[in-house]
Amino acid sequence: MTRQSLTIVFPLYQQITQLDFTGPHQILSRLPGARVIRASADGGVVTAEDGLTFPTQRLAEVEACDVLCVPGGFGCAEAMLDAAFIGEVRRLGLGARYVTSVCTGSLILGAAGLLRGRRAACHWAWRDLLVPFGATPDAARVVRDGHVLTGGGVTAGLDFALTLAAEIAGPDVAQALQLGFEYSPEPPFDAGRPETAPPQILAAVEAHTAKMIAPRREAVMAAAAALRAGADG
Amino acid sequence: MTRQSLTIVFPLYQQITQLDFTGPHQILSRLPGARVIRASADGGVVTAEDGLTFPTQRLAEVEACDVLCVPGGFGCAEAMLDAAFIGEVRRLGLGARYVTSVCTGSLILGAAGLLRGRRAACHWAWRDLLVPFGATPDAARVVRDGHVLTGGGVTAGLDFALTLAAEIAGPDVAQALQLGFEYSPEPPFDAGRPETAPPQILAAVEAHTAKMIAPRREAVMAAAAALRAGADG
Repeated sequence: MTRQSLTIVFPLYQQITQLDFTGPHQILSRLPGARVIRASADGGVVTAEDGLTFPTQRLAEVEACDVLCVPGGFGCAEAMLDAAFIGEVRRLGLGARYVTSVCTGSLILGAAGLLRGRRAACHWAWRDLLVPFGATPDAARVVRDGHVLTGGGVTAGLDFALTLAAEIAGPDVAQALQLGFEYSPEPPFDAGRPETAPPQILAAVEAHTAKMIAPRREAVMAAAAALRAGADG
Repeated sequence: MTRQSLTIVFPLYQQITQLDFTGPHQILSRLPGARVIRASADGGVVTAEDGLTFPTQRLAEVEACDVLCVPGGFGCAEAMLDAAFIGEVRRLGLGARYVTSVCTGSLILGAAGLLRGRRAACHWAWRDLLVPFGATPDAARVVRDGHVLTGGGVTAGLDFALTLAAEIAGPDVAQALQLGFEYSPEPPFDAGRPETAPPQILAAVEAHTAKMIAPRREAVMAAAAALRAGADG
């Protein structure tokens, strides 16, 4: 990896939340020297929650990267339990200059053993699931702990990507990207965090996610057990 | 079109800015009854500026839609001059409940004759190119003029999509989506608009876009001439 090239790998899996990935992809692909690789365990086409499809190459074929960026999504529970996928994430993460994630992608970093003793962000509804992986949940929108940069839920990927852009290429490049993408947000409501959303909106969203809690927690506990077994083995 | 179904069509073309499209796609696809169609003039695979690829169906095969949403991108100039593409955008737009765009997608709506006498948004660097199409440029991030909703540059697509979500499904649904996507932005810099960006950043971005001005203006003038010829014919 020379100074001129910047290899960015997005490990993808079925049922990602595509905006976790497409937001940072849009921004980071414009960094000087960026070479962006979309890869998955089997190298097939990945289908996002909303039906968008993304061709990938095999993670095992990716030698190394400067930036590893794992998106979140409904499929994260299954991905955490895919030993081949997690093994590749771990291998690439151990050699990366920056280990990063958006949304529930941090749970996958956790399952890969890359967050032990680290503070990390996650989607607000799933933040506490970082604990079994030895990480400390942090409610900040973008969390930096050493070379590990993690973003909160979905749209935090934009703030994360500009933060990483500034880190890698300097604040002038990051600000030029921000201006080019006209990132001067004006959300029509103040409902983007559980602390600011009207109580009935929070209750509705929590009711919707309630049915996902048990299976996702179960997946996290199994992935954390596998991680401990690997570490002890 | 029954009340239960909501057909949303994204007309795509080569060299779109994928975030113009993927942002609203992520949000609008979660609206009750949403059926999202990605379509292009020839029904092939569309490649975005940053290399992401999107399979499409043929626009001519799309009977009608509730929402027409045109993204922007480097390829907008060429798309404006593609008579088949513009003809389909016009046909679908004339029957749509909502005619919408993100970024330079409004130039395509203009070329299709859908913005005559309307106020519209566009990416800040290209806003004045709306004038030859009989539209009035508006610097707001999301602009509504009757059933025409347009967003500013790239990331304005998120604010636009939540505004449209509230319009279609009510503010409770829109706020639940905002919370689900944790849209509580914290840009790391205040450089997202030409009015707030440091002068040297603005100068750098303007120098970068300078070479695109002449060909894009030429395309707009040709598209506006074709539009007038069509109206007179």
